Amino acid sequence: MTIHTVIDDKERVNRLRLIRSENVGPVTYRQLMRRFGSAGAALDALPTLASRGGRKSRRLVICPPGDAEREIEALHAIGGRFLYIGQADYPATLAAVEDAPPVLALLGRSELLTQTIVAIVGSRNASTNGKRLAGQFAKAIGNAGITVTSGLAMGIDTAAHAASLDTGTVAVVAGGIDVIYPRENTGLYHEIAQRGAIVAEQPFGMVGQARHFPRRNRIISGLSAGTLVVEATQRSGSLITARLAGEQGRDVFALPGSPLDPRARGTNDLIRNGAALVETPEEVISALRQSSLSMLSMTDDAAFLPPPDTDHAADVDDIRRRLLGVLGPVPVNVDDLVADLHLPPGPIATALLELELAGRVERLAGGRVSLLADIDAPAPNAAFSSEKQTTLF
Amino acid sequence: MTIHTVIDDKERVNRLRLIRSENVGPVTYRQLMRRFGSAGAALDALPTLASRGGRKSRRLVICPPGDAEREIEALHAIGGRFLYIGQADYPATLAAVEDAPPVLALLGRSELLTQTIVAIVGSRNASTNGKRLAGQFAKAIGNAGITVTSGLAMGIDTAAHAASLDTGTVAVVAGGIDVIYPRENTGLYHEIAQRGAIVAEQPFGMVGQARHFPRRNRIISGLSAGTLVVEATQRSGSLITARLAGEQGRDVFALPGSPLDPRARGTNDLIRNGAALVETPEEVISALRQSSLSMLSMTDDAAFLPPPDTDHAADVDDIRRRLLGVLGPVPVNVDDLVADLHLPPGPIATALLELELAGRVERLAGGRVSLLADIDAPAPNAAFSSEKQTTLF
Repeated sequence: MTIHTVIDDKERVNRLRLIRSENVGPVTYRQLMRRFGSAGAALDALPTLASRGGRKSRRLVICPPGDAEREIEALHAIGGRFLYIGQADYPATLAAVEDAPPVLALLGRSELLTQTIVAIVGSRNASTNGKRLAGQFAKAIGNAGITVTSGLAMGIDTAAHAASLDTGTVAVVAGGIDVIYPRENTGLYHEIAQRGAIVAEQPFGMVGQARHFPRRNRIISGLSAGTLVVEATQRSGSLITARLAGEQGRDVFALPGSPLDPRARGTNDLIRNGAALVETPEEVISALRQSSLSMLSMTDDAAFLPPPDTDHAADVDDIRRRLLGVLGPVPVNVDDLVADLHLPPGPIATALLELELAGRVERLAGGRVSLLADIDAPAPNAAFSSEKQTTLF
Repeated sequence: MTIHTVIDDKERVNRLRLIRSENVGPVTYRQLMRRFGSAGAALDALPTLASRGGRKSRRLVICPPGDAEREIEALHAIGGRFLYIGQADYPATLAAVEDAPPVLALLGRSELLTQTIVAIVGSRNASTNGKRLAGQFAKAIGNAGITVTSGLAMGIDTAAHAASLDTGTVAVVAGGIDVIYPRENTGLYHEIAQRGAIVAEQPFGMVGQARHFPRRNRIISGLSAGTLVVEATQRSGSLITARLAGEQGRDVFALPGSPLDPRARGTNDLIRNGAALVETPEEVISALRQSSLSMLSMTDDAAFLPPPDTDHAADVDDIRRRLLGVLGPVPVNVDDLVADLHLPPGPIATALLELELAGRVERLAGGRVSLLADIDAPAPNAAFSSEKQTTLF
């Protein structure tokens, strides 16, 4: 079992500040926590790291304590609270994802997140039969004691949530936890907030933007032992969720459909590419029973790895220069960089962290990094520019 | 390339007599031909072999020359002819099947059998969409220069034949080649006889019986580089064709369908069990292009293997007794018998051949044999009892 460190209110505020600060994404957050041990220490180090990384014209925007405190209060005011990665109540399956949100807003029943979870997703523009199937699967899966998660979208998502309200349903929203989208699901949102759970990565009050949806999808798949795609055209966003589930090592299930049905193109493609063809909820339940066993062995120990050796600043200066020489806009694996430069991984990690905070490199999922073209231009939306959306489109 | 021995009219009559004789199935036929070199010599040996195998109360019914001659004449009279395994015009893909019919009646264009062939099969009780898909696939596959084969049944078969009349279609019928079944397809039968080809394993005039249908299905799959199942309930006979195709090492393709559609249960099951999910004819065509290359390397040399060593009769007597001691109603592999009895395979093969002709053991596909319970009872339909239907149900 993982040992979870108890953290105080100040550290809670600081952790929220850290992830809400410019150029700090989930992966960088974990690195900073590993390196500095606490969010407070990491926040103190941010300006130095960024300036060593080459930031000159504009100071890194660090989330002020007041902003984080107000966000925590606002969430409390509507009956919610934050879950912090590395803490006991943070969902273990999500914590096992490399770029899991370090801080997750929760409204509703937290215990739904500690059960086995299955995602049921699909097209917004679903058919009557597709919605009926989504409902049938959600109901049967819920009755088997499994939490159903989805994205509160129209169509399949709505049918899945509605059918699992009685047993346990979790809606992952793309914007802030208090932002109801789409409007048509206002009633369902409130029902889920009362009887199920709503989770969100984005700041309170933030209206979901296009780039947030794939980020949201990684949470849906990451919470889940498996993702079931009910109906999906070839361009459906639910295919992103399925792909992410596969990358996260989770089960992918798909309902087949006639070649004459364009709404089955996406699910048939998934099956062709290795997703399990399922026709009944029982197939999903029995597969999940097996994989939930392996989920139990997952630990969210990423935040508790020993910090790397302290690096000599002079070495790192040299390494930063060499990194800028070999990095380009095409993502490269950090392991390949280490092999290419014949340098120890510790100082390279430090140099990359600094370059990232300076806004000169971007860290992507799968241990890859790329050079950002526009080094010192002001970020258009500094507080949220840490989102590494390119990895997910 | 395989060298094909030219055979004279007398040998043609004898080969037809051999396969029309009691207790001689396709596998036994090949063994007899390998052992005796000609059908005439095999026919001469049949009574001795059967009596050595333990046949007592009733003589083995051997097809009289007149019956075979009349069948050949009748087939000629309607414009057809027989294809003999081991001859150049016998389809090579079918000859590669262990229990291929040694003699095959053909009506129509024999050249259709030398092209790459794909089987398109499915439910008789097909949906409008299923028949439409079968037609679309048959047309596109035919336009790619591939012969389409099916079973002349209602539904999917009919749609596949009708759509490939212009490019080349082969109907494999369960009964005699002159027996039109079902009656509704009388017009289609005559069109295929004129423009395509009809083939049959059963004797001229024989009305197809339930046990002949799976036998027919092995010819459909055996002629084909791949079998496509368009629509099939879980009990559809087309699933037998698909299974046989898999056992024969051929491609199996299936069209997926909604879990709400009972006509898709069978095809979805096939996909779950490894059949290729296809949505377009192009997928079938490109897969067949690859497998047809491997089909070319198949040779029908089974009839030309060197005969086994002559066995000492006394040894074989003893082996027969020991075989009857270890065989039971549950099929056993001949290799396992050889290993169990610590005896050379040659005499065991001879003993099994004799026991089979005596009606005491049954030879099944996959090199297996089983003991028949009722040893000396008269066969109800002696001329056709050689069908080894149990292997195919």
